[in-house]
Amino acid sequence: MTEKIDTQGTWLTCRPDIKIQDCTIRDGGLINAHKFDDTFFKAVYDADIASGVSYMEIGYKCSKKIFAPDKFGKWKYCDENSIREIVGENNTPLKLCAMADTGRTDYHEDIQPKKDSVLDLIRVACYINQIPAALDIVKDCYDKGYEVTLQLMAISVVKEKELREALDIIAKSPVTAVFIVDSFGALYSEQVRYLINIYKDALSSSGKEIGIHAHNNQQLAYANTIEALILGASRLDATINGMGRGAGNCPLENLVSFLKNPNFKLRPILKCIQEHVIPLQNDMEWGAMIPYMLTAMLNMHPKDAIAMRSSTTRDDLVGFYDQLVQQEL
Amino acid sequence: MTEKIDTQGTWLTCRPDIKIQDCTIRDGGLINAHKFDDTFFKAVYDADIASGVSYMEIGYKCSKKIFAPDKFGKWKYCDENSIREIVGENNTPLKLCAMADTGRTDYHEDIQPKKDSVLDLIRVACYINQIPAALDIVKDCYDKGYEVTLQLMAISVVKEKELREALDIIAKSPVTAVFIVDSFGALYSEQVRYLINIYKDALSSSGKEIGIHAHNNQQLAYANTIEALILGASRLDATINGMGRGAGNCPLENLVSFLKNPNFKLRPILKCIQEHVIPLQNDMEWGAMIPYMLTAMLNMHPKDAIAMRSSTTRDDLVGFYDQLVQQEL
Repeated sequence: MTEKIDTQGTWLTCRPDIKIQDCTIRDGGLINAHKFDDTFFKAVYDADIASGVSYMEIGYKCSKKIFAPDKFGKWKYCDENSIREIVGENNTPLKLCAMADTGRTDYHEDIQPKKDSVLDLIRVACYINQIPAALDIVKDCYDKGYEVTLQLMAISVVKEKELREALDIIAKSPVTAVFIVDSFGALYSEQVRYLINIYKDALSSSGKEIGIHAHNNQQLAYANTIEALILGASRLDATINGMGRGAGNCPLENLVSFLKNPNFKLRPILKCIQEHVIPLQNDMEWGAMIPYMLTAMLNMHPKDAIAMRSSTTRDDLVGFYDQLVQQEL
Repeated sequence: MTEKIDTQGTWLTCRPDIKIQDCTIRDGGLINAHKFDDTFFKAVYDADIASGVSYMEIGYKCSKKIFAPDKFGKWKYCDENSIREIVGENNTPLKLCAMADTGRTDYHEDIQPKKDSVLDLIRVACYINQIPAALDIVKDCYDKGYEVTLQLMAISVVKEKELREALDIIAKSPVTAVFIVDSFGALYSEQVRYLINIYKDALSSSGKEIGIHAHNNQQLAYANTIEALILGASRLDATINGMGRGAGNCPLENLVSFLKNPNFKLRPILKCIQEHVIPLQNDMEWGAMIPYMLTAMLNMHPKDAIAMRSSTTRDDLVGFYDQLVQQEL
């Protein structure tokens, strides 16, 4: 069969509309309960500025009533003073953002008016069934003066009819961008093409941008990110060295190596990896591994694979495969 | 712009024309000078049979005059008795193949008539400038009774005009398939699409199949393999756990997880990885790493990155980047 694809440029094109979000501290924080020290935070911050990244996502605005502060590091909450202690007023071109996870945030209380905050953007994350609650957070944050984007998670299990309905509602909200969030790392490139077209149909007329947040369960995070990019996505999530829970994310260094925009620089990212990220690998594990491929293949959340990698049977690939196949029945 | 792509099925389609070549022993042999022990060879052989792989590539038919036998293991030469000691007459559905590398093989002497050989297929590898010499090997092997395919290496530096000329010549030869060989791991999916179309133009009328052999320098080996597959390639090279020189190859387990053909089985491959491949990682290194991404980004052979990973500066990413950038000038 013949499929028509609408592309926006090729790998040789420099697209000024491209904005990279570095999610290293936020997504990487899911590995270590957000307990990064200030030196590491500052190294990522400096690397992002030097490499031309547009936004740095520093963590969550999570409720201290739900997540006890003695169990998590400060980037679970992103209090204003925690941020300012490291970046001051952030008088740089790099914008800062934090994630408000629907159902887990006391946004009315914990998210300050923009004029009192060093954050620029609130990224509201939700599952399809949480859209109304998410839009309430969107409105609250927008009214407080922030840029707001929406991260629609677990996209690989959303039905097309419901996705179209959700996007039509979101199109009327004040978000500047809506993201395809492949939480399970389950998408193939042809499915990315299909989703981008649905997003374009729903969002183009309202001028909202399309973003992608890919996970590397099947070694496709980078491939799917550049596929989305070529087809018109302009908000691209990545993490340094692909750091992120489980299989991790689209590596920022790969993405920058692909982009031909001279505003993006690779060397500062490599320096940060060499000096700050590689040493963390002694205590933190991330990256594409077969257990994550198996959960993604079955379009499942990676939590079983994450648990398996923390268990005494962490190397028992066949046992884990058998368990998943039996579970499916 | 709008691009038209002709696809042959989707990720839900079972394509009976698909044939997988497992290149683990051949490509992995480039890491350890082809010194696999018989137990490992047999484990891969058994896994390939059990998982439904069509061809197992066991090594090279290299000249002992050029490559001294005291320096390499037996899979550099693939002597008949070496193979038979492990697989006997190979009375299985799995076909065996070896690579004849143009300019490095005494094919007249070292490749026996098919009736005396347990090999089924000779894969002739060449660079674009070696096409006439390669076609002499093709003819010799075809006349001896083998199936023959052609692996056109370093495709990312071949000019389109010359590629079209070469494919027109190859179309008249008795090969059954011609492969896109991304030796530098430099291709993006859109370039795979472009190359597949050129191959189709040149080869469809002669009924020759199209194959792909991808390397994982940019974490795109699997993505590019399934892109080629969707667009019509039917000969797919992969290796168990992605084992292969440098960044390695398209992982066989990923490829099988993608294919919905019930003839392919994942579990035997996982068992082989767990019991035989992972233990080798103590002595052999392969897989996507930043130095390989850097050479691929510059469309260079990975040899500098391979050398860097064997040197005392194996972790100096920034130094290696600087060296490559300076070299380029």
